Amino acid sequence: ALEGDDEDLRALLLEYHATEIAILFSSLSQESRDRIISMLPSELASEVISEMDAEIHPERILENLHPERLSEIMEELDYDDATDILSQLSEDRQNEILSDLDDENARHIRNLLTYDEDTAGGLMNTQVLKINSRLAKTEALEEVIRQSEEMEEFYTINVVDDHNHLQGIVSLKDIIKSKNTVIVHDLIKEEFVYVKANTDQEEVARLISQYNLTSIPVVDDEMHLLGRITFDDVIDVMEEENTEDILKISGVSEDEELSGNWKEAVKSRLPWLVINLGTAFLAASVIRYFEPTISKLVLLSGYMTMIAGMGGNTATQALAVTIRRISLTDLTDNQAYRTILKEFTVGLINGACIGLIVLLFAIFYDKNPLMGLVIFISMTGNLVLAGIAGASIPLVLKRIGIDPAIASSIIITTFTDVFGFLLLLGLATRLLL
Amino acid sequence: ALEGDDEDLRALLLEYHATEIAILFSSLSQESRDRIISMLPSELASEVISEMDAEIHPERILENLHPERLSEIMEELDYDDATDILSQLSEDRQNEILSDLDDENARHIRNLLTYDEDTAGGLMNTQVLKINSRLAKTEALEEVIRQSEEMEEFYTINVVDDHNHLQGIVSLKDIIKSKNTVIVHDLIKEEFVYVKANTDQEEVARLISQYNLTSIPVVDDEMHLLGRITFDDVIDVMEEENTEDILKISGVSEDEELSGNWKEAVKSRLPWLVINLGTAFLAASVIRYFEPTISKLVLLSGYMTMIAGMGGNTATQALAVTIRRISLTDLTDNQAYRTILKEFTVGLINGACIGLIVLLFAIFYDKNPLMGLVIFISMTGNLVLAGIAGASIPLVLKRIGIDPAIASSIIITTFTDVFGFLLLLGLATRLLL
Repeated sequence: ALEGDDEDLRALLLEYHATEIAILFSSLSQESRDRIISMLPSELASEVISEMDAEIHPERILENLHPERLSEIMEELDYDDATDILSQLSEDRQNEILSDLDDENARHIRNLLTYDEDTAGGLMNTQVLKINSRLAKTEALEEVIRQSEEMEEFYTINVVDDHNHLQGIVSLKDIIKSKNTVIVHDLIKEEFVYVKANTDQEEVARLISQYNLTSIPVVDDEMHLLGRITFDDVIDVMEEENTEDILKISGVSEDEELSGNWKEAVKSRLPWLVINLGTAFLAASVIRYFEPTISKLVLLSGYMTMIAGMGGNTATQALAVTIRRISLTDLTDNQAYRTILKEFTVGLINGACIGLIVLLFAIFYDKNPLMGLVIFISMTGNLVLAGIAGASIPLVLKRIGIDPAIASSIIITTFTDVFGFLLLLGLATRLLL
Repeated sequence: ALEGDDEDLRALLLEYHATEIAILFSSLSQESRDRIISMLPSELASEVISEMDAEIHPERILENLHPERLSEIMEELDYDDATDILSQLSEDRQNEILSDLDDENARHIRNLLTYDEDTAGGLMNTQVLKINSRLAKTEALEEVIRQSEEMEEFYTINVVDDHNHLQGIVSLKDIIKSKNTVIVHDLIKEEFVYVKANTDQEEVARLISQYNLTSIPVVDDEMHLLGRITFDDVIDVMEEENTEDILKISGVSEDEELSGNWKEAVKSRLPWLVINLGTAFLAASVIRYFEPTISKLVLLSGYMTMIAGMGGNTATQALAVTIRRISLTDLTDNQAYRTILKEFTVGLINGACIGLIVLLFAIFYDKNPLMGLVIFISMTGNLVLAGIAGASIPLVLKRIGIDPAIASSIIITTFTDVFGFLLLLGLATRLLL
């Protein structure tokens, strides 16, 4: 795909934005990626690497680079991006690369590597715009312009005292608009949003999104300013969390890479299927227990599949709505109670409607009104239970601190299978034999 | 819940950020919301209303306001927020409210109301920072400060010619850092990202997220600058699109409000269940066709539920991974082909593993190796089909321009039920009777 002269290709690539080259990379081989990175100027190369999707493994490019070239590129990377990429390599390799960097760069990155990937500390950049609250307007403006030389986003300026304690924030707009005689201290907004380094990344995303922030400062327990997180990191976090939610609800391990190969996919999904097979044996054992009933009324086995299917679907619907709702807002006890009540009502009404259709079929096609009644009751009962389970299981999991999305439709569906079979076959044994 | 003196409550509320009051609103009655809005200063009231989740209906507050107060608040709202809220009201009511506003405000909002809600035009704010490319540095800076008076985000400045044609963008940073003798024209970045007013909101979100933009300009077909969309609007769009994806995969209408009541939930979900009931009748008719086989081998009905369950789960897994993947990136033909091949392989391996467990059970528990073999083949075959269907159906839908998330697990699951039953019962009839 990438034929021809290196010079021509290089000239062509220079026409594109780093983001576009990073997108192109997802459809190229590792070899072609390495070749392209090797021919770009270090600054552009570092931008491309930082824009690459984590799923296509930017760290592999670093692995293949010549040590000198590697140091050049590492020094161009933002500390947070460099840290993200390095964290994918072995500790030995990390130390090797860090020892080739200049001391300050290496120190910043070593420091960032100590934070958990999923926390504010793992997201933050330690390169942060800060000014002392004692500065006069013109000094402040000069300082901001000096510090912003290397920074993309510099609109929210952190104000610290002599000991690097965060006192508040000030916007560039306020500095520019102020009279020449003011000092920074007069402009500070003291009501501002910040996070601790160990704050979970979902909470960081929630705050940035709710308060419409371009960046948020990160502090330690003594309010020392550690770094900042910008909105573009949060957009990535949101994509990632949403992917995890969809995968977990569908019974796929949250770590499965969307573009991973079949080996990773088997490793991620087979365990869930085996767990589910266990619960399927449970449902099958209910059926076995009622074998005498089925052998006398073979007609029931067609209805069994309907009741199980409808119960599973109703549970999946209730589950999806509830999980999505609690991932966007925290529910009060009263709201949680009303959610379960709502799903009970929905299950009852949908169950009665679907049950009625099947009842009419049993009356007019099978000419067996009593069997129709048994099916009607089982369908309604199963859909009520499905609604209650679909809403309450994630709510309970959330209360006891377990990720509610783990209540995948796979697990909950077998739950409704067992109950639906018990109800249908139990009633049939009592009333129809 | 909100007792006591109005004055005390007002004093208390003024301590909070508009966002916090908006969050509080989601657990209050409509009456309490109206009361709180009535006691806040118009500016804060308008901020609270614009931060309110669309699901808790900010337009209802407007409905209940005194006309004079309503105009005050409407004039404080950003045009895009005002438009979003007004668009929820009847056309008569919209005209009534607009006729009370001053001409300029009304004109801007009327203009925005003409765009489809889900496009760039529907998201954009027409209040946009723009300067003429002929301005000198100091004039430009003064102009920016003047225009920014009413604007939250003003870091990306649009540069236009005398006819409002967008020529490029310039950052505030570049203006500040430049020498006093330059004119804006010298600073323009001519490579920049923009969207047309009819661009779909998902595309807007993708661009803002990929290029890490704080805002993106919106133009018409002749490159006239119409407005801009800021990153915080895009975060809301992403949440909304993700909710829709999760709901659709789970067989819930995308319009269902997460916090809606049971009536809305029944309306949104019952149609899906009825569609599914149709396909369930299909699966049941397969079973009925093979009734003679089942009545001779009642043991099969327990295995039927296992094969159907496992097929459904495998299809759901493949579906979730594929839908999520194509919602984040466009796949080439080759990538699409490899995705289907991957899911075929995963289905084959998982099917053989699960099939083997069930085979062993049939041999050692049921002492029926031949039946075990039939089940093994059916399990493997059904999981292969489930993998292929789960991957290829959303891919095909995407190609022909239909939202792939519509391929809900509900539909695909019944598909695997039918095939699984056909395979198991067909083979059993041939080999076991």
